[in-house]
Amino acid sequence: MSKYQENQLFIYNTLNRKKELFQPLNPPHVGLYVCGPTVYGDTHLGHARPAVTFDLLFRYLKHLGYKVRYVRNITDVGHLESDADEGEDKILKKARLEHVEPMEVVQYYLNRYHESMKALNILSPSIEPLASGHIIEQQAMAEEILSKGYAYESNGSVYFDVLKYNRKYHYGKLSGRVLEDLISNAQSPGRTDEKKNSVDFALWKKAGPSHIMRWPSKWGEGFPGWHLECSAMSRKYLGMQFDIHGGGMDLMFPHHECEIAQSVAASGSDAVRYWMHNNMVTINGQKMGKSLGNFVTLEELFTGSHKLLDKSYSPGTIKFFILQAHYGSTLDFSNEALGAAEKGLVRLMGAVKALDRIEPGAAGSFNILEFEKKAYRAMNDDLGSPVLIAHLFDTARFINSALSGKDSVTAADLDKLRSLLRLFVFDILGLEEKGDREMGDLAAKLVDLLLNIRLEVKNNKNFELSDRIRNELTGFGIVVKDKKDGFEWEMKE
Amino acid sequence: MSKYQENQLFIYNTLNRKKELFQPLNPPHVGLYVCGPTVYGDTHLGHARPAVTFDLLFRYLKHLGYKVRYVRNITDVGHLESDADEGEDKILKKARLEHVEPMEVVQYYLNRYHESMKALNILSPSIEPLASGHIIEQQAMAEEILSKGYAYESNGSVYFDVLKYNRKYHYGKLSGRVLEDLISNAQSPGRTDEKKNSVDFALWKKAGPSHIMRWPSKWGEGFPGWHLECSAMSRKYLGMQFDIHGGGMDLMFPHHECEIAQSVAASGSDAVRYWMHNNMVTINGQKMGKSLGNFVTLEELFTGSHKLLDKSYSPGTIKFFILQAHYGSTLDFSNEALGAAEKGLVRLMGAVKALDRIEPGAAGSFNILEFEKKAYRAMNDDLGSPVLIAHLFDTARFINSALSGKDSVTAADLDKLRSLLRLFVFDILGLEEKGDREMGDLAAKLVDLLLNIRLEVKNNKNFELSDRIRNELTGFGIVVKDKKDGFEWEMKE
Repeated sequence: MSKYQENQLFIYNTLNRKKELFQPLNPPHVGLYVCGPTVYGDTHLGHARPAVTFDLLFRYLKHLGYKVRYVRNITDVGHLESDADEGEDKILKKARLEHVEPMEVVQYYLNRYHESMKALNILSPSIEPLASGHIIEQQAMAEEILSKGYAYESNGSVYFDVLKYNRKYHYGKLSGRVLEDLISNAQSPGRTDEKKNSVDFALWKKAGPSHIMRWPSKWGEGFPGWHLECSAMSRKYLGMQFDIHGGGMDLMFPHHECEIAQSVAASGSDAVRYWMHNNMVTINGQKMGKSLGNFVTLEELFTGSHKLLDKSYSPGTIKFFILQAHYGSTLDFSNEALGAAEKGLVRLMGAVKALDRIEPGAAGSFNILEFEKKAYRAMNDDLGSPVLIAHLFDTARFINSALSGKDSVTAADLDKLRSLLRLFVFDILGLEEKGDREMGDLAAKLVDLLLNIRLEVKNNKNFELSDRIRNELTGFGIVVKDKKDGFEWEMKE
Repeated sequence: MSKYQENQLFIYNTLNRKKELFQPLNPPHVGLYVCGPTVYGDTHLGHARPAVTFDLLFRYLKHLGYKVRYVRNITDVGHLESDADEGEDKILKKARLEHVEPMEVVQYYLNRYHESMKALNILSPSIEPLASGHIIEQQAMAEEILSKGYAYESNGSVYFDVLKYNRKYHYGKLSGRVLEDLISNAQSPGRTDEKKNSVDFALWKKAGPSHIMRWPSKWGEGFPGWHLECSAMSRKYLGMQFDIHGGGMDLMFPHHECEIAQSVAASGSDAVRYWMHNNMVTINGQKMGKSLGNFVTLEELFTGSHKLLDKSYSPGTIKFFILQAHYGSTLDFSNEALGAAEKGLVRLMGAVKALDRIEPGAAGSFNILEFEKKAYRAMNDDLGSPVLIAHLFDTARFINSALSGKDSVTAADLDKLRSLLRLFVFDILGLEEKGDREMGDLAAKLVDLLLNIRLEVKNNKNFELSDRIRNELTGFGIVVKDKKDGFEWEMKE
């Protein structure tokens, strides 16, 4: 029996506004599509949260025994500055400002995005398609929607006819927006120069004379509308119907609402069975925005180089902080909160490491089966990482208690505990041991050697040298704690 | 005056079979296109050599002050098992064997290729386009060639008409192949089922019913011929004419010969001004091949896990070994040769590091201007990295001599020497200091601390502890050399 047959995973389906039992179309296969970044600037907190959220999902689904095809797209064309099909293409604007070819902008920021993902220990998706690499597929889908009567050509562009679609289907069913409100709230309600109605959105846009990113089409030279890429690429790589579509809550409208309309208009039925949305991040209680001066990139967090930051925070701390909140709640970044996450992570990692120093006893007082059940229960409840982490902290308390001899654990339970902790901490939450990356194995061995020498010279009453070793290590950011049976040390961050 | 105005860079132009002064079309801009990998297997020695060669070129051109747009493509469709437009698509075959979607194969091996490139400290190109992402551009070029009369449609495929092309132009001018010989040596000379002549090559291939990687076209569903991607993508990102096209010598025929024919047929003139080819690698004197059992991947080299390898070799050693030969010569990999490169690299890096310990004197005996001139002269002579490295070794000898007090150098010369060495070793050759990656700065500081403690306890006649420190370090792969004024250490590989 597979792990996924033993576990009932519930996920909150935005479409139906409730937690639903996850039942894939073709087990053991799972198709997962997540909206990736528009690569025209540095990776920031708004990128880190969906990346961590859907990495957790990807890891857990794989752990449950599913064969997951995870597609995360890269938007490199068609994402205009305004959601209303207006303004410049974001990539093109950056290319113009930097006097380079647009694909150089794409390559540069894509490389940097990959580096950030690697720092956060985010697994690579199975396929990472570029929008500009799927123009034919997008043109084909636009033609299908035209042929079904839910789009119209206008002055070399193709627009989706929202009102006509809404007569048969429901535009707004994901986001809960009401079409009448959207129409009356539009800046210029009703017909515009090109659109039958201002709520209509572009499937294909005619390229102006100075627009570099352009492709031939039966409607003239142009480029695809932003929403179309996800519909076309998810269909290409995951099929007409697939299991899960994820993304940030900010994409729910208009992006995901338009994706649904496109798929339904083209094929007559919904493509996605479960829609998952991570909630937003705020900074000191405020929405993050370039104009607000509180826009923090991941590099600034890792190096502490933003004026709002008291110090630097490691990628592990950022990831742990994100995981300590449920993905469906808002998450507020502050120095206090990050500092607390940092301490928590050190405590948790310390417990995992301390397991190796516990002497097993004849009897055990830890209910390992109960812990295992609770950990899975937390994950099965819509990826309840904060609850899982709370259980992990309970376990850490027990470990410290067993280490000091106040509690005991049998050898068999100790083995089981070790593999369970490693499973949940490293494989599922995707955290990393300090020694693995941030420090290096060799450095860890050298610190151990230095501290053993320190013990020895201390025993020989050479307190001067013993203190010097301690002080030098502190200078390198290594905090030494003396224990009655030796020492412990950890990296300060 | 820019550096490139002070230096006359000569490069060997395969097209004209001689070294030519490099004069870009639009200085300071340089357009450089290099054939990247077909991503259906692990990165091997055959990938490392062009990567290192054109990384050296890219770095040197940038150092000279050129603004280089470096395009290195990724072949993810159309590369068939046989050069004669026959056999299965390489990616598709792997996907079939592994039961995954072809783009999952592409993503997996592309990620691994990037990791290998990073290990070798190869700079990312400016743009890394995928063939599957440029189908429209390839179709457009096939249409142009058709409209000029140098191609014909046959049974849903489009073939380049080599004989017709050769009546006006010269097919074979790059590789020196003679068309008559090619025709008479063909396995089935003359007309075939689809081709007018067996030497014709596909611009577009009809997709059979089971072929997954397929796109609509005016000729029916199909996929592009392998040679077309480079002509279409270089034109898109570098223009109708550009400066340098690089690649391995194995690609000269038919791939590059066909690229020339395609560009000339489409536009009437050559696209590329300088063709550069790195020579091949052999292993113990033999051509590398999967059937010969001597096919060595980079991962096997880095871990020493191939039966032909006595031990592991670091990425730095592999890179240094490649740079110690001129890119135009064949390069034979053997344990002896790699071992020698490893020692050479340690010596060179040791000299760079030792510069910090030299006490400047009142007078100097090193001709720094002469060294600088010779170093540039080596690079300007068709990227003469082996000659440059020989000059660097001469300098290393002087440094060791100055360190031991046999020679002396003024403070000003020492500064200049330091920056010149760093320029050529790190920026241009692209080598890395051990401490930077393979070891970590923290570990280096910890080793220094340990060795200072060792000196101290040794002075206090605690030889037991002093020996123990040395032995433990040796166990970690760190070799300590005692000097009269202290110590030196280095990582064993």
